[in-house]
Amino acid sequence: MFSYRRESGPRLRPSTARFLAHASAWGCLATVSAHEKIAGLPFGNCLPISDGPLNNSTGIPFFYVTAKDPAVADLMKNPMASLLLPESEGEFCRKNIVDPEDPRCARLTLTGQMIAVSPEEVEFAKQAMFSRHPVMRKWPRQYEWFFMKMKIEHIWLQKWYGGVSDIAREEYFKALPRKA
Amino acid sequence: MFSYRRESGPRLRPSTARFLAHASAWGCLATVSAHEKIAGLPFGNCLPISDGPLNNSTGIPFFYVTAKDPAVADLMKNPMASLLLPESEGEFCRKNIVDPEDPRCARLTLTGQMIAVSPEEVEFAKQAMFSRHPVMRKWPRQYEWFFMKMKIEHIWLQKWYGGVSDIAREEYFKALPRKA
Repeated sequence: MFSYRRESGPRLRPSTARFLAHASAWGCLATVSAHEKIAGLPFGNCLPISDGPLNNSTGIPFFYVTAKDPAVADLMKNPMASLLLPESEGEFCRKNIVDPEDPRCARLTLTGQMIAVSPEEVEFAKQAMFSRHPVMRKWPRQYEWFFMKMKIEHIWLQKWYGGVSDIAREEYFKALPRKA
Repeated sequence: MFSYRRESGPRLRPSTARFLAHASAWGCLATVSAHEKIAGLPFGNCLPISDGPLNNSTGIPFFYVTAKDPAVADLMKNPMASLLLPESEGEFCRKNIVDPEDPRCARLTLTGQMIAVSPEEVEFAKQAMFSRHPVMRKWPRQYEWFFMKMKIEHIWLQKWYGGVSDIAREEYFKALPRKA
């Protein structure tokens, strides 16, 4: 029942991880809460992401955020976070959580430090985010949006109860995005 | 642009929160990682949930999990977690994150202790989960599935950059689920 006909070997995992990072339009960011009532507890939020324009995958998730978001307020106190990308495209996640037999099902977790994008990189971050989330251009200016990115430290690829693979940063960054 | 025609007042927030808890078929659980390489960091996972059969909302999220899941392994070491419910139904979440003008957009975060369901409550948990996720009945037995639930301690309702409301537990549990 849980045999994966298209199971990818260890060799393909970095490419699968890069595919998930590139294909995902949003992810769930887990932070350490800075809110006084739940200080120190894990907190989660779903945010739009982009690892680059469609023709230029970097593997690095970029974000367009405002300090008014509780998750961003958390990051100001503790920049370490995990980004969960629950699906590779479209309806994968929800189909998979009710259909564990789907061999394409995989989840990627990226863990690292969240930092503001430097002035030199803002133009790239803007292309990355706005090309894939065009409505962002119209988000109201008074919310003081800015760009963040994750400095990835750990990469986990989880197949549906098929185990968790630890992927080396070097392998991840040199891989080409490829659907498993 | 950000004026909500259907903005609900404070009086309706507990009902909106209960609506989100009842309508959501899945949520993102943020835990404190027990994995040696990222010990203590926040970790996220998306899981199917149910707060009861469709005609019986309890406001309490139930889960059907296996210790093989890294999130569950985390909970064995530290049972405190946050559950993010990013959408009220169907496509809300992803529509909203690219359409911040949608007045129905709201996110619920429940924070508390994750515990195994007691033997007396297993039958209810089974009805809650299996009635809304029928495929679970077929999940392979060797994964040693069991039921968990969250003992809710804090309730946050966030409108899209419209602020975060702290909802009292008592108000939450006595409210009837109602679409904002």
